[in-house]
Amino acid sequence: MEKLILDGKAVSKDIRSNLAVRVEELQSKGVTPCLATILVGENPSSETYVKMKGNACKKLGIQSERIHLSSETTTEELVDTINKLNHDDAVHGILLQHPVPEQIDERKAFDTIAIEKDVDGVTSTGYGQTALGFGEYPSCTPAAIMTILDYYDISAEGKNAVVVGRSPILGKPVSALLLNENATVTTCHSRTKDLPDILKRADIVVAAIGKPSFIQGEWIKDGAVVLDAGYNKGNIGDVDYDSCYEKASAITPVPGGVGPVTISMLLKHTVDAAAKKL
Amino acid sequence: MEKLILDGKAVSKDIRSNLAVRVEELQSKGVTPCLATILVGENPSSETYVKMKGNACKKLGIQSERIHLSSETTTEELVDTINKLNHDDAVHGILLQHPVPEQIDERKAFDTIAIEKDVDGVTSTGYGQTALGFGEYPSCTPAAIMTILDYYDISAEGKNAVVVGRSPILGKPVSALLLNENATVTTCHSRTKDLPDILKRADIVVAAIGKPSFIQGEWIKDGAVVLDAGYNKGNIGDVDYDSCYEKASAITPVPGGVGPVTISMLLKHTVDAAAKKL
Repeated sequence: MEKLILDGKAVSKDIRSNLAVRVEELQSKGVTPCLATILVGENPSSETYVKMKGNACKKLGIQSERIHLSSETTTEELVDTINKLNHDDAVHGILLQHPVPEQIDERKAFDTIAIEKDVDGVTSTGYGQTALGFGEYPSCTPAAIMTILDYYDISAEGKNAVVVGRSPILGKPVSALLLNENATVTTCHSRTKDLPDILKRADIVVAAIGKPSFIQGEWIKDGAVVLDAGYNKGNIGDVDYDSCYEKASAITPVPGGVGPVTISMLLKHTVDAAAKKL
Repeated sequence: MEKLILDGKAVSKDIRSNLAVRVEELQSKGVTPCLATILVGENPSSETYVKMKGNACKKLGIQSERIHLSSETTTEELVDTINKLNHDDAVHGILLQHPVPEQIDERKAFDTIAIEKDVDGVTSTGYGQTALGFGEYPSCTPAAIMTILDYYDISAEGKNAVVVGRSPILGKPVSALLLNENATVTTCHSRTKDLPDILKRADIVVAAIGKPSFIQGEWIKDGAVVLDAGYNKGNIGDVDYDSCYEKASAITPVPGGVGPVTISMLLKHTVDAAAKKL
């Protein structure tokens, strides 16, 4: 069987070269896209993520405004910071890096982000709009998965898609997006019984459960399309790559699969949001 | 096998007798729950639905404010009407009867309803909050289905639930609610291939597709729980009752199943919204 390795770097390169042109155009018209990133507390991985996102912005000529709040920040203080950014006309997108320290009501903070600046797709309203089929900025990893499928002309229409995971920014929205593309979608999670039995019927598998190398090749059917949204310590996905590679018709590697496209989605949404200011 | 007929009238009676007490208490404290209903244009079925809802309010001592707009109403006029109700402190819940005439942007109208008055569960934000697990007023038919399961102590935990239909106020939110109750949820629709094959694995079946007597007994497994949210001309559900009755362990009839509980949910949400004014 022909194997297709779904190359996130290639997809990403394509998106970013297109964005570079758009950013230049916007700048020539006096609009410099700007993403504000908020990091709360001291979490080395979060700091790395925020830095990566900031660097990706810089390379494209997108301005990034980095805000770093102390680990003692209260919900009210964070909400105030977000509200200021909501009212700042120079800021087109707001990203609040997850997770925030325990004392903060993260959901309240997320839902403070103005819908038109929710380029990371974390608000309840944004989720609702995405699920109902008209969201402009779906959560970035789900958007990345759909973009990869689209890039490789893999249609979800009428396919059985099984999503393993149900987080607010991954499993739930990717289930919604696949459903809107006319897949028959099954959402599985830690309480699912007989996961291998369910996976065996999947034409499209999305792994988003946060367990390293969890999905086994023997669980999936021959020819399945496997999208690994996992990102565990040591750059390991949620899919046992070697055994799934044997069975799959198409598969994303980790790293170099969904990850780079996720950041590209954030950049694209920021540019889209800025373009509305013309 | 023991057969359980899931009696929506009994569930409803229980809810409404409880609500009657709550309404009396609220009134004694100076708050009369009030539902505003908006009907646009001349649609005999819609007129009947709105009248039924108004009568159900009246019986419990809930005030209902009926607004009937002409069939030539514009989106802007409807949005203005909703905004006035949003700002009217005497109104606790707003129901916009679906469908509205063609020239109106129904989604825009729905999304104008203030989240705290969205007792019918039609806003994008309400949907998002419901799916993310903290919505206060889920769409009424999905809420009715979950209430019936709860009343009869039927747990969704770890069960395979198959929802047939994906409308914004039924299939999608009931899928979300079942997922939040730890069911493994498959959402099917008109593009689904091999529906009978998928249904055969369902412990819980929700029919919400709008096709009279569509779901056949031979498609479902022995002992399945069957919830019929269909409501077709002539009081016919989406489930072929006789053949499904044979196979099911529990089943809702039509009429007298999900329908009466749906209206009870609307009443309950209105009373809940009023209670916040204390």
